Amino acid sequence: MEELGKRAMAGDMRAASRLIRNIEDNIPDTHKAIKHIFPHTGKAHVVGLTGAPGAGKSTITDELIMAIRKKNKTVGVLAVDPTSPFTGGALLGDRIRMLRHAEDPGVFIRSLATRGAMGGLSKAVGDGIHVLDVMGKDVIIVETVGVGQQEVDIINHAHTVIVVLVPGMGDDVQAIKAGLMEIADIFVINKADRDGAKKLYKETKNMIGMGKWTSGWEPPVLMIESVMEPHSFARSVAELYDKIEAHYQHLVDKNILVDRAHRKVVTELNDALKAAILDPVLKKLMADGEMEGMIAKLKTKATDPYSLAEEVAQKYMKDI
Amino acid sequence: MEELGKRAMAGDMRAASRLIRNIEDNIPDTHKAIKHIFPHTGKAHVVGLTGAPGAGKSTITDELIMAIRKKNKTVGVLAVDPTSPFTGGALLGDRIRMLRHAEDPGVFIRSLATRGAMGGLSKAVGDGIHVLDVMGKDVIIVETVGVGQQEVDIINHAHTVIVVLVPGMGDDVQAIKAGLMEIADIFVINKADRDGAKKLYKETKNMIGMGKWTSGWEPPVLMIESVMEPHSFARSVAELYDKIEAHYQHLVDKNILVDRAHRKVVTELNDALKAAILDPVLKKLMADGEMEGMIAKLKTKATDPYSLAEEVAQKYMKDI
Repeated sequence: MEELGKRAMAGDMRAASRLIRNIEDNIPDTHKAIKHIFPHTGKAHVVGLTGAPGAGKSTITDELIMAIRKKNKTVGVLAVDPTSPFTGGALLGDRIRMLRHAEDPGVFIRSLATRGAMGGLSKAVGDGIHVLDVMGKDVIIVETVGVGQQEVDIINHAHTVIVVLVPGMGDDVQAIKAGLMEIADIFVINKADRDGAKKLYKETKNMIGMGKWTSGWEPPVLMIESVMEPHSFARSVAELYDKIEAHYQHLVDKNILVDRAHRKVVTELNDALKAAILDPVLKKLMADGEMEGMIAKLKTKATDPYSLAEEVAQKYMKDI
Repeated sequence: MEELGKRAMAGDMRAASRLIRNIEDNIPDTHKAIKHIFPHTGKAHVVGLTGAPGAGKSTITDELIMAIRKKNKTVGVLAVDPTSPFTGGALLGDRIRMLRHAEDPGVFIRSLATRGAMGGLSKAVGDGIHVLDVMGKDVIIVETVGVGQQEVDIINHAHTVIVVLVPGMGDDVQAIKAGLMEIADIFVINKADRDGAKKLYKETKNMIGMGKWTSGWEPPVLMIESVMEPHSFARSVAELYDKIEAHYQHLVDKNILVDRAHRKVVTELNDALKAAILDPVLKKLMADGEMEGMIAKLKTKATDPYSLAEEVAQKYMKDI
C-alpha cells in the first residue's frame, strides 16, 4: 500500500487511480499510503465548487480546466456525485467530460461516489485531495452538490470556495445562500441571461453587504451567461479563474492561508478520529451479530437506543 | 429531564418545545427524556419530504397540513433548514407559515437547525420525531433540503418518502433522482405548468420503470401545478395526501411496515452509538486542549491524522 503511495507521488496515474478507488471503497490499509504521502502534501491550491443541483457546476468546472491549462498549470478534479444502483457510478456526462480532457496529461479527473450508510465521504475527499496534491497538480477542483452539513465538511477541504447560484429557483435560494454564506469566497450567478438574474445579483450583494469580512476579502459576485453563448461563457470563466487566483494571493499576502489550513486539518482530524474510534466498534458489532440483536430489541421497544449505546460504550471504551 | 418527557407525553406544548430545543442544542441529559418516552413511540405515520432547494417543499408542506387537518388528523412538522449567523435560525417564511397554523392546536411546527461541525442532525431529527409522536400527532412531516448522505440519513426516519422535483433545473436533476430513487415512495413534479414538465415526467417514469420494486409498490409520479393556481394546487396536494395514505396502507397490508421500522431503528442506533462513543472522546480532547496540540502538529506536518487518531484510540478504547 505504501508502494502505491510512492508510485502515485512519482506521477504514476494508474497507481493514483487505484489509490483513489481504495479510498472510495474504504480499504483499511489505504491509511498506510496516506500516512506515507501526507508529509509531502500542501502544495496545491484546492478550489471547492458547490451549489444546488442544476446550477451548472459541471459545465463551469469543465471550462475552468481550460482556463487553468491556458496558464500552463496542471489540474486535478474530484467530482463528488450522488450515485445509485440505477446509474452504477459516475454519470454519463462525467464520462463525456473526462473524454474531452483524456489526451491531456495535465488533467486528472476522478469521481467519488457517496457510499456507505455512515458517511465517510469527507474523509475520502480529504485523502483524494492528498493524492492529487502529491501527484503535483497545481490546482485541485472539488466539485460537490448540495447544502447539507456533509457538503460543508467536504468544502472545508478547500482554500477557495465558489458558490454557484442560478436565477429562478425560488425562495429556498435564500436558504442556500444563508447556509453557504459563511464559507463562500466567490459567488457565481450562472445562467445570468435568465430572468431574475439581476434580482438575484442584488440580493446576493445585499446579503454580502450584511456580513462581516474580517479577513479583508469581500466575496465578489460574478455573472456568467449560459453556455449557450460559448464565447462569452469562456471569457466569464477565465475571469472567474482570475478571481480564484486573486483570492489565493490574498490568502498568501495576508498570511491567512494558515487559517484555511486550520479548517482543513480540523476536518481531516475529525474524519480520522471517527475512522479510528467509531468505525471499528460498528464493524465489531456487525461481525458478532450483536448489531442485529440490538436492532431486534429496538423494534419491540424492549429497550431504547441510548441505553444500548451506553452498554456498548462501557464494553469497548476505557473510562474517560 | 424525565419530567419534561412526561409533560410532553401529556400534550404540554411548552414542554415539547423545550425538549426539542434541548435536542437541537445537544444537551446531554436530553437522552433521559428520550429513554423515558421511547417505549411509547411508534404510533405516528412519519412522512419525509425532500428535494432540491427551490423545489417548493415548504409550500407543499403548508398545503399538506391543510389536507391532513381536513381528515381530522393532527400534524407535527419538523423543518430541517440550513441556518447561519446571517439569518439567526428559522427563515422568515417559516415564521409566516407557523403563524398561519398558530391558532390550530392540531398543528405543531418546529424547525431544527443544522448546527455543529460533527453533524448529529439525524439524531436530532430521530429524537424530535419521538417527541411529536408521543404528543399524539397522527402524521409527522419531516421536511429537508438537499441530496447528501446526511439527508438520506434524515429521510431514513420516515415511513413514506416524497421526492419533489421541478422542471428546468438541468441535467443534475438526473443525479438527484439517482441518489433518491432508492428511497422514494412518491415522486412529485412541482410547478408542472412550467416548460419541461412533461419531459421530466417521462424521464422520471422511465427511471422508475428501470427499478425493481420488490415490495410491490411502484412509486407514482404526481404533477402539481404552481401555487399560482391556488385551487388546482390544493386539489393536487389533497391527491398527494391520498397517495401518502395509500402508501401507508400498503405498508400495513403487506406487513412491511416493520421493514421501514428496521431502517428507522438502524439509523437511530447508529446515531446513538456515535453520541455514546465518538462524541465523548472529542469532548475530552477539546477540554484537555489536546485537540489543539494535535491540530498544531498536523499543520507543521510533524505527523499525520491517521497516526494521531490511532494514538487516541489506544488511549481511550479497550482492545477489540
